[in-house]
Amino acid sequence: MSNKVNIGLIGFGTIGSGVVKILHSRKAFLKKKTGVEINIKRICDKDLKSRRIVKVRSSLLTKKADDIINDSSIDIVVELIGGVHPAKEIIEKSLRKGKYVVTANKALLCEEAESIFAMSKTLGKDIYFEAAVAGGIPIVKSIKEGLIANKFLGIYGILNGTSNYVLSLMAEKDCSFTQALEEAKKKGYAEKNASLDVEGIDSAHKISLLCYLAFGKIVKVKDILVEGINRISSLDIRYAKELGFKIKLLAIAKKDKDKLEVRVHPTLIPEGNLLASVDGVYNGICLSGDLTGRLFFYGKGAGRFPTASSIVSDIVELTKNIKAGLFKSDINIIEDKSVKLLEKTGEFQSRFYVRFMAIDKPGILAKISGVLGDFGISIASVTQKERKFAKAVPIVMITHIAKEEPLKKAIKQIDNLSIVKEQTVAIKMEDI
Amino acid sequence: MSNKVNIGLIGFGTIGSGVVKILHSRKAFLKKKTGVEINIKRICDKDLKSRRIVKVRSSLLTKKADDIINDSSIDIVVELIGGVHPAKEIIEKSLRKGKYVVTANKALLCEEAESIFAMSKTLGKDIYFEAAVAGGIPIVKSIKEGLIANKFLGIYGILNGTSNYVLSLMAEKDCSFTQALEEAKKKGYAEKNASLDVEGIDSAHKISLLCYLAFGKIVKVKDILVEGINRISSLDIRYAKELGFKIKLLAIAKKDKDKLEVRVHPTLIPEGNLLASVDGVYNGICLSGDLTGRLFFYGKGAGRFPTASSIVSDIVELTKNIKAGLFKSDINIIEDKSVKLLEKTGEFQSRFYVRFMAIDKPGILAKISGVLGDFGISIASVTQKERKFAKAVPIVMITHIAKEEPLKKAIKQIDNLSIVKEQTVAIKMEDI
Repeated sequence: MSNKVNIGLIGFGTIGSGVVKILHSRKAFLKKKTGVEINIKRICDKDLKSRRIVKVRSSLLTKKADDIINDSSIDIVVELIGGVHPAKEIIEKSLRKGKYVVTANKALLCEEAESIFAMSKTLGKDIYFEAAVAGGIPIVKSIKEGLIANKFLGIYGILNGTSNYVLSLMAEKDCSFTQALEEAKKKGYAEKNASLDVEGIDSAHKISLLCYLAFGKIVKVKDILVEGINRISSLDIRYAKELGFKIKLLAIAKKDKDKLEVRVHPTLIPEGNLLASVDGVYNGICLSGDLTGRLFFYGKGAGRFPTASSIVSDIVELTKNIKAGLFKSDINIIEDKSVKLLEKTGEFQSRFYVRFMAIDKPGILAKISGVLGDFGISIASVTQKERKFAKAVPIVMITHIAKEEPLKKAIKQIDNLSIVKEQTVAIKMEDI
Repeated sequence: MSNKVNIGLIGFGTIGSGVVKILHSRKAFLKKKTGVEINIKRICDKDLKSRRIVKVRSSLLTKKADDIINDSSIDIVVELIGGVHPAKEIIEKSLRKGKYVVTANKALLCEEAESIFAMSKTLGKDIYFEAAVAGGIPIVKSIKEGLIANKFLGIYGILNGTSNYVLSLMAEKDCSFTQALEEAKKKGYAEKNASLDVEGIDSAHKISLLCYLAFGKIVKVKDILVEGINRISSLDIRYAKELGFKIKLLAIAKKDKDKLEVRVHPTLIPEGNLLASVDGVYNGICLSGDLTGRLFFYGKGAGRFPTASSIVSDIVELTKNIKAGLFKSDINIIEDKSVKLLEKTGEFQSRFYVRFMAIDKPGILAKISGVLGDFGISIASVTQKERKFAKAVPIVMITHIAKEEPLKKAIKQIDNLSIVKEQTVAIKMEDI
């Protein structure tokens, strides 16, 4: 029984320095709680010059990841460099060297899930990744342990703080996507290149990890229907509000018998829903377990200390196992081979919000609804938002449950009509 | 390394039968996840005749708790009989016999915290109690493990489903407390004797347990300011709504430096707050960690399967430890002796909603506000809700931050005025 566990940290940036700061300043606190001293043995980063929020002895620092991987006294490797390479090689080498791994690297875990998780299982060395999804919210632990007796029915998550901040700002200031994104960048809520965030890829990585935990299914981003928020306008946010909805970038995983449906897209959700209250950089996850019924988790999805909080909890968890001399004590994620992934498009159904920009003249509605009818799309409500004779005005429709494929075809045909002046906008709706 | 863990269940009622049902129907599922077979060895209840939702071999059943306590093959005792006695004796005997304990018994854990937790620590046998607070929400695990690196600043919880259902119904139907409680009893959301629920005692037990987990402080119900919802009228719910607030029975624990303030009382909270969205039998907990910032958890706070879900997760957790041959692997709750409990009354400050019923005639407001002024209570807003000359009408005030003691004195004096026709209502407000 060891009373000291050695950590090697790879990546000494914003999050990494937060982890070091917590492990230093709360050393005694964590030792009292766990009975073990958590010791940072080595820190690796390519930049050893920049000032950090925490001072460390220079002897701890190295530019070579191998100094950590090959140090047999190190029990846990914390990988915080992000991206697929060389993070993948670092984690695999670490596992092979008998080390446990903590990472926040959702892109890697999602893209290389089969090989990484298989290697972890084969070698009996756990990979913990609480910080990879929803920052400071303990959602991974909750699904894996707290709700272990449940079979899950559905997950609905606002998992990307940047996109949510942009949408919240557009709603608040009635400004364009571009303006809101600029503002987010200025405030440090969006990176210079925010495409992974606003195009929905980051949310797809995260819902993919939640699918693995909740449904035992590895889902690749390429198999997820992913739409970003870049085509959302403040006009649609306003009209949605008038109808009692908010537009959120939602990551959805729904299971119906053996069919799993995974999507990420802007979604109209009822204003009364808890997810509609998730504004700014916060994340929110609505989860249905067959025993618990609906659960909802909310908190900061990013940032130095919320993320570091989750990483430290993973380190503590592994420390408990190591202290006990455990070979492996993690919960097995059961791969459920019976689960079939629903095809990306065409198969799923939802209601749709549709906005046409059409010339305000008699007969226009008949024309549009005629085409929709030809494709079997049935209309639940329609409102013409302004009156400007002989000019293009917005016409907002809510459809009944429909498939996306025929709707797209209908819209294509409608957009070819001379009375329609802009590309028609269609946004999915979700009854959560 | 054992591959089978034996459970003894004491209490085969609603929750107990839910636990048995899950452990039976998900035996293979849980074995795959944990690598261990969870076996129900014996079930004790004083009533062995009633039909349950699950059938068990009669050889499993006994009326004697000792048959479980003295069975050396049983690893985990699950106590689900509730109440302080004989649950306390059962748990203590079980610990002494070297068994781990799972319980949902908040009253016992709260009232006998010192002796029970001390015995568990001394004997090195963990007591798990996820189901004791907030039913199916994994809040205990989240505080103890997922958020282990945090120091907590505050906890605000809607922890009693019955009270919340009653308040929600009063708001929805504009009916009295008594009518709503009757309805709740009919629907099975309130027990025949609902006094522990509506008087706030049950919420006090639960916030006490959360205080232990989050602040390392054992707080007795007698040291908690506890007010129930029985004096709330639908009138106040309506006026609160007009002002942008909802009235909820809130359990509050706030820490400021070394001072801990614990209270349970009806509270006006802003409608935009997530806790205000917690309606019906649901529970919600808003938690502030110094690293994570604000977190919010929501789900069903009671009911057979949500509660049983939490109990099974505790059993699994202990199973993992037993499988690993662990003597003890739980997180230590650090008792923080520096934390001082703020006195129950007089010391804390809040804004107050105050409703006077006074004769509608000139000068009345001057009189009331004069008395309030004499006691140093300053008024933020005031509205007379109706006009009925020379009759009693409601006057609703919101005070600035004030202490309760002087406010109570002022109200006593005001209630003695001949122009005041009913006992004045004062409800605390909380900016969360």
